[in-house]
Amino acid sequence: MRLGLGLIGTGFMGKAHALAYRSAGPVFGGLPDVDLAVLCDTPADKAATLGRQFGFARATDDWRALVADPAVDIVSITTPNGLHREMALAAIDAGKHVHCEKPLALTFEDAREMAEAARAAGVRTIVGYNYIHNPAVTHARALIAKGTIGRPVHFRGWVDEDYQADPDLPWTWRAKRADAGLGTLGDLGCHLVSMAHVLMGPIESLIADTQIIHETRPLADGTGRGAVENEDTASAILRFASGAQGTLCTSRSAWGRKNKLDWEVHGTRGMITFAQERMNELQFYANDGPKAEQGFRTILTGPEHPPYGAFCPAPGHQLGFGDLKIIEAAGLLTAIAKGEEAFPNFTDALGFESVIHAIDRSAREGRRFSPEY
Amino acid sequence: MRLGLGLIGTGFMGKAHALAYRSAGPVFGGLPDVDLAVLCDTPADKAATLGRQFGFARATDDWRALVADPAVDIVSITTPNGLHREMALAAIDAGKHVHCEKPLALTFEDAREMAEAARAAGVRTIVGYNYIHNPAVTHARALIAKGTIGRPVHFRGWVDEDYQADPDLPWTWRAKRADAGLGTLGDLGCHLVSMAHVLMGPIESLIADTQIIHETRPLADGTGRGAVENEDTASAILRFASGAQGTLCTSRSAWGRKNKLDWEVHGTRGMITFAQERMNELQFYANDGPKAEQGFRTILTGPEHPPYGAFCPAPGHQLGFGDLKIIEAAGLLTAIAKGEEAFPNFTDALGFESVIHAIDRSAREGRRFSPEY
Amino acid sequence: MRLGLGLIGTGFMGKAHALAYRSAGPVFGGLPDVDLAVLCDTPADKAATLGRQFGFARATDDWRALVADPAVDIVSITTPNGLHREMALAAIDAGKHVHCEKPLALTFEDAREMAEAARAAGVRTIVGYNYIHNPAVTHARALIAKGTIGRPVHFRGWVDEDYQADPDLPWTWRAKRADAGLGTLGDLGCHLVSMAHVLMGPIESLIADTQIIHETRPLADGTGRGAVENEDTASAILRFASGAQGTLCTSRSAWGRKNKLDWEVHGTRGMITFAQERMNELQFYANDGPKAEQGFRTILTGPEHPPYGAFCPAPGHQLGFGDLKIIEAAGLLTAIAKGEEAFPNFTDALGFESVIHAIDRSAREGRRFSPEY
Amino acid sequence: MRLGLGLIGTGFMGKAHALAYRSAGPVFGGLPDVDLAVLCDTPADKAATLGRQFGFARATDDWRALVADPAVDIVSITTPNGLHREMALAAIDAGKHVHCEKPLALTFEDAREMAEAARAAGVRTIVGYNYIHNPAVTHARALIAKGTIGRPVHFRGWVDEDYQADPDLPWTWRAKRADAGLGTLGDLGCHLVSMAHVLMGPIESLIADTQIIHETRPLADGTGRGAVENEDTASAILRFASGAQGTLCTSRSAWGRKNKLDWEVHGTRGMITFAQERMNELQFYANDGPKAEQGFRTILTGPEHPPYGAFCPAPGHQLGFGDLKIIEAAGLLTAIAKGEEAFPNFTDALGFESVIHAIDRSAREGRRFSPEY
Repeated sequence: MRLGLGLIGTGFMGKAHALAYRSAGPVFGGLPDVDLAVLCDTPADKAATLGRQFGFARATDDWRALVADPAVDIVSITTPNGLHREMALAAIDAGKHVHCEKPLALTFEDAREMAEAARAAGVRTIVGYNYIHNPAVTHARALIAKGTIGRPVHFRGWVDEDYQADPDLPWTWRAKRADAGLGTLGDLGCHLVSMAHVLMGPIESLIADTQIIHETRPLADGTGRGAVENEDTASAILRFASGAQGTLCTSRSAWGRKNKLDWEVHGTRGMITFAQERMNELQFYANDGPKAEQGFRTILTGPEHPPYGAFCPAPGHQLGFGDLKIIEAAGLLTAIAKGEEAFPNFTDALGFESVIHAIDRSAREGRRFSPEY
Repeated sequence: MRLGLGLIGTGFMGKAHALAYRSAGPVFGGLPDVDLAVLCDTPADKAATLGRQFGFARATDDWRALVADPAVDIVSITTPNGLHREMALAAIDAGKHVHCEKPLALTFEDAREMAEAARAAGVRTIVGYNYIHNPAVTHARALIAKGTIGRPVHFRGWVDEDYQADPDLPWTWRAKRADAGLGTLGDLGCHLVSMAHVLMGPIESLIADTQIIHETRPLADGTGRGAVENEDTASAILRFASGAQGTLCTSRSAWGRKNKLDWEVHGTRGMITFAQERMNELQFYANDGPKAEQGFRTILTGPEHPPYGAFCPAPGHQLGFGDLKIIEAAGLLTAIAKGEEAFPNFTDALGFESVIHAIDRSAREGRRFSPEY
Repeated sequence: MRLGLGLIGTGFMGKAHALAYRSAGPVFGGLPDVDLAVLCDTPADKAATLGRQFGFARATDDWRALVADPAVDIVSITTPNGLHREMALAAIDAGKHVHCEKPLALTFEDAREMAEAARAAGVRTIVGYNYIHNPAVTHARALIAKGTIGRPVHFRGWVDEDYQADPDLPWTWRAKRADAGLGTLGDLGCHLVSMAHVLMGPIESLIADTQIIHETRPLADGTGRGAVENEDTASAILRFASGAQGTLCTSRSAWGRKNKLDWEVHGTRGMITFAQERMNELQFYANDGPKAEQGFRTILTGPEHPPYGAFCPAPGHQLGFGDLKIIEAAGLLTAIAKGEEAFPNFTDALGFESVIHAIDRSAREGRRFSPEY
Repeated sequence: MRLGLGLIGTGFMGKAHALAYRSAGPVFGGLPDVDLAVLCDTPADKAATLGRQFGFARATDDWRALVADPAVDIVSITTPNGLHREMALAAIDAGKHVHCEKPLALTFEDAREMAEAARAAGVRTIVGYNYIHNPAVTHARALIAKGTIGRPVHFRGWVDEDYQADPDLPWTWRAKRADAGLGTLGDLGCHLVSMAHVLMGPIESLIADTQIIHETRPLADGTGRGAVENEDTASAILRFASGAQGTLCTSRSAWGRKNKLDWEVHGTRGMITFAQERMNELQFYANDGPKAEQGFRTILTGPEHPPYGAFCPAPGHQLGFGDLKIIEAAGLLTAIAKGEEAFPNFTDALGFESVIHAIDRSAREGRRFSPEY
């Protein structure tokens, strides 16, 4: 099988997708061949230059032409979040498979429309929740599924960065709800929800609070200050459908945190914890063996933790961020080849994102809220 | 000045108090001399044996006799929490200074009665919130006060142990609200509140949830199972009077955690974090100097962090739990000598404990709650 | 410029080279285009299968044909160490640029012959000392060069794994000096020497000792036990040309170590340390600012640490092992394009490897030894 | 049994001894009672003031009077190292038990004289190698003795501080061999040797090198610069009597290290490592159970690790430096009460210290050296 890729966007994520689709087949073997068919960005010469660098056959500044191009089987969308909906719906409408960056959309309603369209069209979709594909996380899920830590009864998660910590940063469109949607919940929080879901299952209800730390920021043109409309931090107390409880916290204004996406799963027989900034490690405690020798053990990922071995047969050699995107791309390619759903598809992502919108509403309305799945 | 100590209780905390009062003067110098006057426990021979071991002049099994003894100026109460109120009120009534272990009482109302009695009598009091006396914590408070991390805008705290993690542990009186009061909030949570207070100031309101993980436990006599009435975990989202927000989480059923009393203070210019299981370290990040060299730094406590130097003139040599109790005991002795209030006295402790009761009520009533100070 | 790649070997390192050459151009831009021309392995069908998976135009089981192929400009050698010399000399003789895995050869004399041949032929070479290309290491070198830690006066390095720790592992050819050359020094130790060189400069002389922990191992055919002829551990005390001193330790029998390639550089004003198993972090201490706030800081690599930014514009997202090979491949491509030497070329590698042979001789002869450069 | 203590010196170690003897009985119970009989320092009023603070019955500025005092059964010597010999010999001559700080003496010959005198007199002695009394270290010894990590085959140890790291520190008598003896080997290195001995057994021979980083330092009176005669760093490669090998490294000029006394014991079935700056933790790896769950585990000391429980019945509450001195003092008191040898007595300490002198000689003479036991 050969599949043509049309990639929209050449920024951080655009480049990550290009690299991932170049490497997925060579890493895993047995995948459909990928033709790098069309790259789209504006202006056209930027698309052309990066198209050559990334190895695409053609480049364009017209994303609708890319979607319509018969050489394109998969449309990969890495544009600003507010553009996802229109592009994805067009791609689905054209019968293309879609790889969309997270979050799906600015609002729950838009995301639901996208998920419904994908289901109706029967195309394969995947959303860029790459962190859940980490072999360390996959191993944690396996340990939990095997009962190694007993019944999972409590969850704690945090996702923090510091890109909005500096009080002197200028106001941008990212501070405006109409253009950017949610704040830290949309940028970071939804990644943490994806972790919570795969580890603990769905969330039944929650209570939450949010905070705008820097209420205004200086306008770039020096004419005054603009209002920050979306949250710098959010905190929620969760009840999972399983009966477990937990907390979920996020901040985009946490000095020193660069990609802190950490969690703990408390079980009745042990505990597992993870820290994204040390993404090749799990911490694991089991109530086994002599008390005097119990302790959290640092498990370094290796070939015992699939699909690490596809990258490297030796433990401790470290996967990186780009490798997670390779696993993600391989997931969509496999799904297309097998005629199965990829994970997480638009519907799965809708489930994740329903939680961040529920947090937002709970905080604004001051009451317990259930995510709409 | 010479002060006579009457100590009630010889368990973990009783021994810790005895050791602390023996060492406080030699460590710090300039304190009143302490006579180890009377030790009380039941049965009498246990009191006698440990009285000799700890160096007390006399021993008794009658705590009222201890309180009434004219050789006793300070009554130290380390008995089960349900006994604190009666003993403290008697000691206050006899005009004695009181050193009481935390929490003050099983209920907020009892704690308030104790605080009011102490204020009315004009005696000096201190409550065993020893962790806030750690030089690392004191240094963090100083950094915050100096503005080193800017305005403190967010707090996260956790206090976890695993002494109730095992599903097979038998039922005890600690599971019964009438006898034990709160669960993890009373045992552990109030320590974390004391940290939050000294770092961030008072808490204005909160929303919370609690969880009983093990709803019943086997009765020791094999006749069935008893109900667990108080919480295994509690989670709260806080609004501080300063406008800061934050979260507070506690569990007594968190496998692998032995004394995890950790926190983060997020400021507008930096961050400080602390972990009790590595109590001689602070993690500190400041948005200073070249970006390429920024990072969390591990500050090891040393003589630059008073009162570490009273114990050891060399950095990195590590204080232990017992040393925190020495600082606490010295705090009360100094307060008595100077005729000032110690910190935290009964009124301060009432403030801390109002928060755990507010968490309990918020969780039970499903609404935002303000601690009553 | 277009360059054709001929890759010999499809194991761990063969795959790593294939992936690296596929990604180097897309990651960095501005590099010569690479044609994946010929892949060689035995048997032929393995070469064919993996040639398709990796994207090579042709496959062969005849490495001499690959070397002779006019479509091949670069010969990449990832075969067992004992084969490097013959293949590299043939490639050099054919005027091809050579990318050779470390160590260059089993003996110092063979390595010297290879380096001299490359110099004489004027071809570009690079050797697979990938760890020194880590942005964290590059940043450490820059800090040292700027004098940030003062004069570097002491070095400590370790490189440990546990692939020979199990006493019950069977005897293999790797235990035989004639076939495998050195033991842990050749597998691991030379990587550490490459680190020491780039951080501290050349080594003038050393004293050393080595140890065979498991003197025999069971023969796979059950007929008895075979002798282990090369070292499980090696330790050396170094004098650098700069006047600094230090130690270098390696073990292939260190349980729990998966890729521990760690070092400390002690300077007169600060210290930098690194641990390969946390390859995206540097630890940095400077005697600057208030004593009470000094501490080792954990620097997470990010776009401030070139060439991290070519992979990802956001800090804390983690590079992996494969990314180091991409930087290495880009180094050779750049060198060829610019007509400059790559680093580390065969001569540089000879310098590194002279040290492991000096350690071996010092240990065997019981005297101070100077590496022959 | 009652024993009178005469303590010479009131500095860091003097205070530590005073506190330790005050607490040993109350902590452990069942020990001889200790009378704090005489404290000696100069000038007399300092001795008097600190005598009152520490709780001694009398104070003096005449150490010979202290030694002769019939109320003194134990002489504790915490004076500068050059004074130990004369004081210890006098105390032994007077039939007193002796608690001497490390190192015993400036030279191996002096230390041997002291050990022989103590043996001849039959008094009990102990030397202040307090770090080996840490429950974490004791547990490591027990694990090794039980074979939990198999046969111990390799050792690595480091002991670093930064009190001589600053190039601008003035010259003091500590830089002069005649007055101070060895440099970092005497201050720090001997502690590490004590660790190596208890973990691995005696050292048969070694090769070593030493380094003076700052060859001169400014004289305090501004008249020029004085020569530094003793080593800033030392490194040795060890052969143990057991056949194991290892390395031992020490620096007093290692920026950022405050009390880094770390070691690794490599066994044929596992590994144990320890870091003094996190003295309540062991790292332990065993080749047991599923490979996918293996990892170094962080064991937090607790009541499962005697004698931790004598201080605190709850794990994770942390012992400190002072607690190690309490265990040490209890060791001497127990030995006297039972009429047995304490550990480490003068003869044991002579064994430890023979190694640092062997390192010094090996470095100066450039040849393999065996410690004289």
